[in-house]
Amino acid sequence: MAPLPDAPVAPSVRTVISVDAMGGDRGPAAVVAGIAASAAKNPDIAFILHGDEAELRRLIARRRVLEGRCEIRHAPRAVTMHDKPSQVMRHGEGTSMWSCIDSVKKGEATVAVSCGNTGALMALSMVRLRKLPGVNRPAIACLWPSRNPSGFNVMLDVGADIRADAEDLLQFATMGASYARNGLGLARPRVGLLNVGTEEHKGRAELKLAQDLIAAAAVTGDFDYAGFVEGGDIPGAQVDVIVTDGFTGNIALKTGEGTAKLIADFLKEAFNATFLSRIAALLALTSLQRLQKRIDPRRVNGGVFLGLNGTVVKSHGSADATGVSAAIKLAFLLAQSGFQDGLAARVASAGRAGQDAAANGAGGTDNS
Amino acid sequence: MAPLPDAPVAPSVRTVISVDAMGGDRGPAAVVAGIAASAAKNPDIAFILHGDEAELRRLIARRRVLEGRCEIRHAPRAVTMHDKPSQVMRHGEGTSMWSCIDSVKKGEATVAVSCGNTGALMALSMVRLRKLPGVNRPAIACLWPSRNPSGFNVMLDVGADIRADAEDLLQFATMGASYARNGLGLARPRVGLLNVGTEEHKGRAELKLAQDLIAAAAVTGDFDYAGFVEGGDIPGAQVDVIVTDGFTGNIALKTGEGTAKLIADFLKEAFNATFLSRIAALLALTSLQRLQKRIDPRRVNGGVFLGLNGTVVKSHGSADATGVSAAIKLAFLLAQSGFQDGLAARVASAGRAGQDAAANGAGGTDNS
Repeated sequence: MAPLPDAPVAPSVRTVISVDAMGGDRGPAAVVAGIAASAAKNPDIAFILHGDEAELRRLIARRRVLEGRCEIRHAPRAVTMHDKPSQVMRHGEGTSMWSCIDSVKKGEATVAVSCGNTGALMALSMVRLRKLPGVNRPAIACLWPSRNPSGFNVMLDVGADIRADAEDLLQFATMGASYARNGLGLARPRVGLLNVGTEEHKGRAELKLAQDLIAAAAVTGDFDYAGFVEGGDIPGAQVDVIVTDGFTGNIALKTGEGTAKLIADFLKEAFNATFLSRIAALLALTSLQRLQKRIDPRRVNGGVFLGLNGTVVKSHGSADATGVSAAIKLAFLLAQSGFQDGLAARVASAGRAGQDAAANGAGGTDNS
Repeated sequence: MAPLPDAPVAPSVRTVISVDAMGGDRGPAAVVAGIAASAAKNPDIAFILHGDEAELRRLIARRRVLEGRCEIRHAPRAVTMHDKPSQVMRHGEGTSMWSCIDSVKKGEATVAVSCGNTGALMALSMVRLRKLPGVNRPAIACLWPSRNPSGFNVMLDVGADIRADAEDLLQFATMGASYARNGLGLARPRVGLLNVGTEEHKGRAELKLAQDLIAAAAVTGDFDYAGFVEGGDIPGAQVDVIVTDGFTGNIALKTGEGTAKLIADFLKEAFNATFLSRIAALLALTSLQRLQKRIDPRRVNGGVFLGLNGTVVKSHGSADATGVSAAIKLAFLLAQSGFQDGLAARVASAGRAGQDAAANGAGGTDNS
C-alpha cells in the first residue's frame, strides 16, 4: 500500500555501507560486533557484508539489532596481510575485498569499508573504481587529533603512493579541503603544505612549484592557503588540512602514533610506580579517561581513499569493534553529505581552472 | 715549576668546549647559566665563549663556578634566526657563530656548541671545517626517547640536507653507528632504514639500493643491519639507529615533538579538570616528574653534525639553561671518547670497503 500523502517525509531509504568482513587481524567477529554497535546507534544505516556466508550468518544471528539490515554476499576467499597488491589486482576476484568494492562500483552501496591489506585495497580500488577524471594519483587521507575546535586535522597522502609531483599536491589540496568541509564541517578549510621550514626558499623543488599552484587554486576552491607548515603543525591549530606526499605522510603518521603509544605506556608505568601514584590514578580516573578518548587512535580510525569513482574507507587492520564502528560512522557521514559527487565536481573545476586560469570563473558552488 | 714525578696522574688538561653565546632565542644569559650548570657538575670541563665581550664578562662575573674556566672571544656580530645560510656563509666573519666554529678548526676546542640558526650553522660548519674525506653529505643526528635500555635511539639525517642518495644513506649508517657506540655506549648498534613498510619490495628506488649497500657494510662496520623500519619503530626497541634523508627525518622529528607536546598539554588539562584530579596530580607528583624527565625534549637537546672535520652540536634555539647544559654534556662526552677521530677512520674504512668489497679486511678496530 502506498503511504498516505500526509505521512511525514521520513528518510525511508537507509544509507547502505559495503563492508569487507574478512580483512582484519581480529577476523569477522570484530567486524560484525562493530557494525552491530553502529546499527544500535544509527537507525538510518544498513549493510552489505562480504565474506564467508556460513560464518557471517552465524555471527549476525546473534545480534538482534542487525535483523533485516544486513545483506550477505558470499566470497570464498580473503586477501591476507601478506598478499602482494599486484597479485591481488590480477587474481583477486572471489575475495571479500573485491566483492566489497564491487558493491560500490555497481551503485548498491555508497561507501566501502575494509580492515584489510592497505596496498591490496588501494590496488583493487584503482582497477575496479578507476580514478576520477582529472586525478593523477589518488590519496589516502587520515584524521589527526589536533588543537583545533573540531579536535582533528586532515592529512593526506598518508600512503597511497610514495611519490607526488606539484600537480598531485594541488589535487591533494583540493580533495583534502573537500574532505574537511564534509568530514569536519568547516566552511573554508585552511590548507598547509608540509615542509622542513616555513620560509619560502626552503624545501624541495616540487614544493615551491606546488606552493604557487595551491595558492592560485585557493581563490576558486573555497579554501585558504596558509603556506608551508612543519611537522609540529600537524597536531596544531594553524591549519585544518596538511598536504604531503605518501612517503612523508606515512612516516609522519606512524611516528605520531608510535610517540603517542610510547608516552601512554610511560604514563601507565608512572601511575603504577608507587602506592600514592596508584591512588592518584583512581582519583583522576574520569579525567584520564577523557584524555584517553581525545587521543585514542580507534576514534580516528579510517583512512579515506580520495580521487576514485567511489569512496573507500580503510580501517586499521587491528581494529576492534570500537575501531570498526568509528570507520563505519565516518563512511556514513561521507555518504550522507554527498561527498563523492561534490569532490568530483571540485576536482573537475580545479582542473579547468588550472587549464585556463584566465577564465577565472570556474569555481564550484556546492558544499563539497 | 714542574710537577713532582710521583704526583697522581690526574686529568690535568680540561676538555675545552667552544660555545656560541649569542645564537639562542633566550640570549647569552641562558647560555651562560647553562655552561655554569655544566661546570658545577663536571670539574674536567672548560669553555671558550664567543660573543659580545662586555656582556659576557658581566654574566660570567656573577657565576663563581666559571672562574678561571672561561675564555672569552669577542665577536661584534651575531647570526639571527632570519639570516639566510648563503648570506652567512659569505658574510659571516665577525659573528659569534663563525668564531665558535673557528676555535674547533684551529684545534683550540674539540667540539663546538651553538643554539643558533641551524641552516647557517651547517653552512658555516661546511665551509670552515670542510667535509671528512669520503663523506658526500654531512648529516644531523638526534637522540630520540625510546624503549631501549639506554632510553634513546639515534636518528639521522634530521635536517642537514633535504636529499640523500643510496651512498649517502650508507654513510649515514656508518656515522650513526659510530655515534651510537660513543654516545650511547653500544658495542654493536642495530641499524634500520626508515621506509613506509618492512617488506623488501616497498619504498623508493634509492632505499632498495641503500638496503644492499648497508647490509654489505655491516660486516666490517661492527654494526647489525636490521632492514627496513617504519615510523612507529623510531621510539621502539627494534633498532638503535634510524637512517633516513634529511627531509623525512626533519618532519618525523618535529611530528614526534609536536605529538608529545599535544599529549602533555592534554594531560595538564586533564589534571586541572576537577578538584579530585588536582588532588591526584599532587599525589602522583613524583611519578609524573619522572615521566616528564623521560620525555623532556631538553634532556635530549643537541643535534650533532656528523661528517665534518670537527664535531658541532646544535642546541635548540629555545633552549634554557637545562637545555644548554644537556648539549654541553653531549659535547663533552663526544670529545672525551675520541669520537671525531674514530668516526673519520670508520668513514675512510667504509669507503675502502665500498671501493673494493673483495678485499674484505678493511674494518676498523677502534671503538668509534
